[in-house]
Amino acid sequence: MVGREARTVAVVGLGLVGGSVARRLVDQGLDVVGVDPSAATRTAAAAVGVRCAGSIGDLAVECGWSAGEVPDVVVVAVPLRAMAETARELASALGVGATRGGVVLTDVGSVKAPVREAFAAAGLAGSYVGAHPMAGTEQSGFAASSAQMLAGARWAVTVDPATDAQRLQTLLRLVTGPLGGSAVLLSDADHDRATALVSHVPHVLATELLRLVGRSPVRDVALGLAAGSFRDGTRVGRTDPRRTEAMVRDNANDVAPLLREVARDLAVLAGRLERGEDIAAVFDEPAPVRETLARGGDGGGDDVDAAGAAGAVGSAGHGDDWRARLLAEAAAGAVVVGVDADTGALRYA
Amino acid sequence: MVGREARTVAVVGLGLVGGSVARRLVDQGLDVVGVDPSAATRTAAAAVGVRCAGSIGDLAVECGWSAGEVPDVVVVAVPLRAMAETARELASALGVGATRGGVVLTDVGSVKAPVREAFAAAGLAGSYVGAHPMAGTEQSGFAASSAQMLAGARWAVTVDPATDAQRLQTLLRLVTGPLGGSAVLLSDADHDRATALVSHVPHVLATELLRLVGRSPVRDVALGLAAGSFRDGTRVGRTDPRRTEAMVRDNANDVAPLLREVARDLAVLAGRLERGEDIAAVFDEPAPVRETLARGGDGGGDDVDAAGAAGAVGSAGHGDDWRARLLAEAAAGAVVVGVDADTGALRYA
Repeated sequence: MVGREARTVAVVGLGLVGGSVARRLVDQGLDVVGVDPSAATRTAAAAVGVRCAGSIGDLAVECGWSAGEVPDVVVVAVPLRAMAETARELASALGVGATRGGVVLTDVGSVKAPVREAFAAAGLAGSYVGAHPMAGTEQSGFAASSAQMLAGARWAVTVDPATDAQRLQTLLRLVTGPLGGSAVLLSDADHDRATALVSHVPHVLATELLRLVGRSPVRDVALGLAAGSFRDGTRVGRTDPRRTEAMVRDNANDVAPLLREVARDLAVLAGRLERGEDIAAVFDEPAPVRETLARGGDGGGDDVDAAGAAGAVGSAGHGDDWRARLLAEAAAGAVVVGVDADTGALRYA
Repeated sequence: MVGREARTVAVVGLGLVGGSVARRLVDQGLDVVGVDPSAATRTAAAAVGVRCAGSIGDLAVECGWSAGEVPDVVVVAVPLRAMAETARELASALGVGATRGGVVLTDVGSVKAPVREAFAAAGLAGSYVGAHPMAGTEQSGFAASSAQMLAGARWAVTVDPATDAQRLQTLLRLVTGPLGGSAVLLSDADHDRATALVSHVPHVLATELLRLVGRSPVRDVALGLAAGSFRDGTRVGRTDPRRTEAMVRDNANDVAPLLREVARDLAVLAGRLERGEDIAAVFDEPAPVRETLARGGDGGGDDVDAAGAAGAVGSAGHGDDWRARLLAEAAAGAVVVGVDADTGALRYA
């Protein structure tokens, strides 16, 4: 069996990312319902075609979830601190539909391991597939959301030993279809390590550059001189500070050791500068990464063996190790750009 | 007297920045001559209208410098390590024209105090006005240079107690006229502190992000996920590593203490994350800098008192403190966008 084409999607939390998901899916003709505690946000979302309720319980009543009228996909776009309670509310509101039906529960958070724990604690592990769009802006809230923000976004989609093949296919069809993105499959642990490297630590360093300038006696002339390198290097330091703080705190286990590594490296470099020693090796070290980025950025897409079972989701005819094989293909650079509607096989870039 | 409108410019060193200056001035109809040790570069530069020689001595002979046919401005665009020798060669080739004539000697380097020392050591202090365009690309060399690279660039122009009023006017007319830029005036020391903050340290942190990813076991999936925050934060980490290394080493006195400050800050933040302590203050600290950048980036342009003597270069009618006054105006956010051809007064944005 092949994962379904989602037609009805519920979005819980209509902030920057949830709002952008909802707007994009409405534009693509899907039936989108939403939950947000803010009446102003609900009014704004209703104006663009998202039927809204103030709580999951209210939405369930309005949509008839208890009578089996559950959505194909529920996208949870709430802060991590609200995830456990949201998962419990969903389990209660969806009833048996949450696990026995084909409903896919997913999220958009910037850390993945704690989100899976929250869904598992609510008894929803089998219905959950983790997702994280690598896109954003400096703004936050529904007013800043847009269908365009997610255009062409790379999504991380997380797979673990309990991941259901059909639900994975359904989510990947949604991501690569109406959401207009592409996806990299990986484990929760690898996701959280990777996003610490390419998102959370970059946000901290951008913030740090702003802190340094703010403390400097030459602050104003420095900002007057600031050109591309500073503007680019600090753009994400201008993200809503509460959102940056939450990302960093939520992924503290992966971020803290990297910050210690940066601190060590910079102290070593400062020492070499103070002593007038050679520093060439510091700037030569990332040559291989520069080459990868110059080639277009992903880890090595041409290493994927597209023959035979590549991209096959589920065990039929391919043994029971399909999840491990998909992760290995992704680790070799495979990027999912579509799902075959007949076979459910993944199409790679 | 008012500084002259430069008609003849010599560019010593036709790399990325020197080449871009030369191309732009040729496009604007100026008479541009160049010096570069590379025959291939000279051929390429000649093809776009820059008459070239392989050394300053050769150029001086070809152009008749000893007979008084000296250029209005000489732009030295060589690495800092070659600056002292280049200054001595210029002193020799220009003869009395270097100091008694109105020739302006300037440079484009990313540190300013050591360049002034090099010119002073060659007896050229009175003819020198320091300059540094805040523009660049990841590439290097004449082949990567372009007239467009400098379009709209913010230039740092450095002033010290020996700075000559007419030469400063001539350089600012060149920068805000044919070079198409704007200028912030500041002391060498402030320049070197400010560029450490907004250029050199950002280059180090961008390089550091690439180093972290390169060492990581999840390197390939991380690069596959890398989105805007990582690409923006590492763009200048992909600059020619030899150029980044040189910038950082040349400004070691200002860069090293800032790297130690970053290392301390990050170790403190890591400790707070490890202990589960509150980290909000870290992300709130740069709020005033974020506001300044959101307003358009410079330090406070609307604080300049444009009445009376603002922008007046030279002491006639304004006392002897004109240099200090110009620097104070710049520190309050004044950006030079032109020079009055009749009075020599600076026009501010």
